[in-house]
Amino acid sequence: MQSARPVEPAPAPADLNALRQLVAADLARVNQVIIQQAQSEVKLVSDVAAHIIAAGGKRLRPCLTLASAMLCNYEGARHVQLAACVEFIHTATLLHDDVVDESTLRRGEQTANDIWGNQSSVLVGDFLFSRAFQLMVADGSLDVLKILSDASATISEGEVQQLMVSHDLSITQEIYEQVIGAKTAALFAAACEIGPVVAGQLQWRSALRDYGYALGMAFQMADDALDYAASSEAELGKAIGDDFREGKITMPVMVAYQHATPEEKQFWDETLARGDTLDAQTLTHAKGLMHKHSAIEATMQRAQYFCDAAIAALSPLPASPAKEALEQAARFAVARQF
Amino acid sequence: MQSARPVEPAPAPADLNALRQLVAADLARVNQVIIQQAQSEVKLVSDVAAHIIAAGGKRLRPCLTLASAMLCNYEGARHVQLAACVEFIHTATLLHDDVVDESTLRRGEQTANDIWGNQSSVLVGDFLFSRAFQLMVADGSLDVLKILSDASATISEGEVQQLMVSHDLSITQEIYEQVIGAKTAALFAAACEIGPVVAGQLQWRSALRDYGYALGMAFQMADDALDYAASSEAELGKAIGDDFREGKITMPVMVAYQHATPEEKQFWDETLARGDTLDAQTLTHAKGLMHKHSAIEATMQRAQYFCDAAIAALSPLPASPAKEALEQAARFAVARQF
Repeated sequence: MQSARPVEPAPAPADLNALRQLVAADLARVNQVIIQQAQSEVKLVSDVAAHIIAAGGKRLRPCLTLASAMLCNYEGARHVQLAACVEFIHTATLLHDDVVDESTLRRGEQTANDIWGNQSSVLVGDFLFSRAFQLMVADGSLDVLKILSDASATISEGEVQQLMVSHDLSITQEIYEQVIGAKTAALFAAACEIGPVVAGQLQWRSALRDYGYALGMAFQMADDALDYAASSEAELGKAIGDDFREGKITMPVMVAYQHATPEEKQFWDETLARGDTLDAQTLTHAKGLMHKHSAIEATMQRAQYFCDAAIAALSPLPASPAKEALEQAARFAVARQF
Repeated sequence: MQSARPVEPAPAPADLNALRQLVAADLARVNQVIIQQAQSEVKLVSDVAAHIIAAGGKRLRPCLTLASAMLCNYEGARHVQLAACVEFIHTATLLHDDVVDESTLRRGEQTANDIWGNQSSVLVGDFLFSRAFQLMVADGSLDVLKILSDASATISEGEVQQLMVSHDLSITQEIYEQVIGAKTAALFAAACEIGPVVAGQLQWRSALRDYGYALGMAFQMADDALDYAASSEAELGKAIGDDFREGKITMPVMVAYQHATPEEKQFWDETLARGDTLDAQTLTHAKGLMHKHSAIEATMQRAQYFCDAAIAALSPLPASPAKEALEQAARFAVARQF
């Protein structure tokens, strides 16, 4: 007979399963809206839209809108349309990003710009963006229109700022966080803020907005770490080191550069100048320097700070399955390997 | 002493002077709003926006919004902000068009994509588009938001359709008019519809919308004719024959092709295939074939049909200086040499 041992609490799960299960029925309806509303009489519009939408991804942002509505005890149907709007805005920015980055691979699939050319990606992005606004207008909430038009303006400003500081190894943490706050966290914040707004539970508006913002920050930082730390390109869905090739100075590079010896600084300067032609050996050396200066760890620590902030933002809200699912999503943001 | 002769009526002017004088004070305020609202904390956003806005152009669309509001006896101030929204949406489409067309010259000035790269043009276009929606949300009319989000979706669909039929010499008049209806006339129609909506004179809504649509059609057809018929590139603000180089099959080419002998058809097929490398001699031959088949005349006749339709659409409205200015603008659309 074994002696009695205190039962260890099971580690809190860090995945999107609870979130996905919680919103599964609504998300199926969101997907229907997305497929239906991405149709156009112009066949090429439908084709390009279907391609980027089918590539699918995690549908994390619409899930956040659905869960935040649920957390606010919303019982109507408006959140479904509005979650689709959030995904359309996200999809439009992806199409435009791929043109900006000249990417050929997204989520493991050939990018739309690589198949149909930049022209279609620019224009179909514009179409999806307009369609999002048409759906919001049909919904009729000026509050929601304000949330998402503000987020859209912020996203484009963040992307331009990222362009401006690209190839600049000396950028500060503050600028880096401004950029990812604008290009990523703003839409996460907006996605979460829509829930309390449609539910008319305005007392939770700032809490859910803050949660979304912090979640977005954690998510993007983990993404930036994975760009160097992912175990395989297949899992990452893009080439390891892509950010650096594109001149995007993210936190892992920033930290390694800040702690670099003069000789290492020279390596970074030269490597960045080479950019496109970054070979496997150079990338391995770069990753070695990141390891030496604990750059990935520093990035993940900062991501963990935002994960904790996201969970803390939810603390005023009463316990519920939706709250728990959102907490798990925050833990997933920093625990994920893909 | 001269014998008395019947006095000929002075020909009705065909210019934008009456329109410009009518709205001059309001347009100055629109320009202030445009300059102020195109500002961003991200310097490159402001720079690119200022460049494309300074290139300026005719500001025809905001003038239409202002004049249509005046025609409906509107006495408030909302039309100024909304005219700026119309111009922002137009400007955003220009930035994206120049990326799509790989243009280097617009209105006689170097294009933004040529100076700052495609990336900035895509993203600043997105910014101006978002900013337009922010301004509309601040105005608070769901009617206006619907008008302009519908127009935006239609524009992007029209541009994609134009891509789809590019390099297709056998397109029909119907398809051609669908394309220009969507890419150009839809925003003219929207610009004019906003006037009666802000003025609450909904009985004039469809008349002004119809006027704007027909004006846009006339304007685009004349533009397509000028691409081959302009007397100088300096006046046209872009290279003569640019449309053909880009594979855009517009009405002058369409008509010449429809009436072509087998030998001429072969010329068109080969010339289109050459595209980019179109030399002066080939262009002269192309213009000769257009002359032979009266292709420019046919295009201008169809433009005149839409000019007449625009003026007819205004007929239910009471006589006023604003009405007269809009009639003159329609005549200008087909009489202009630039």
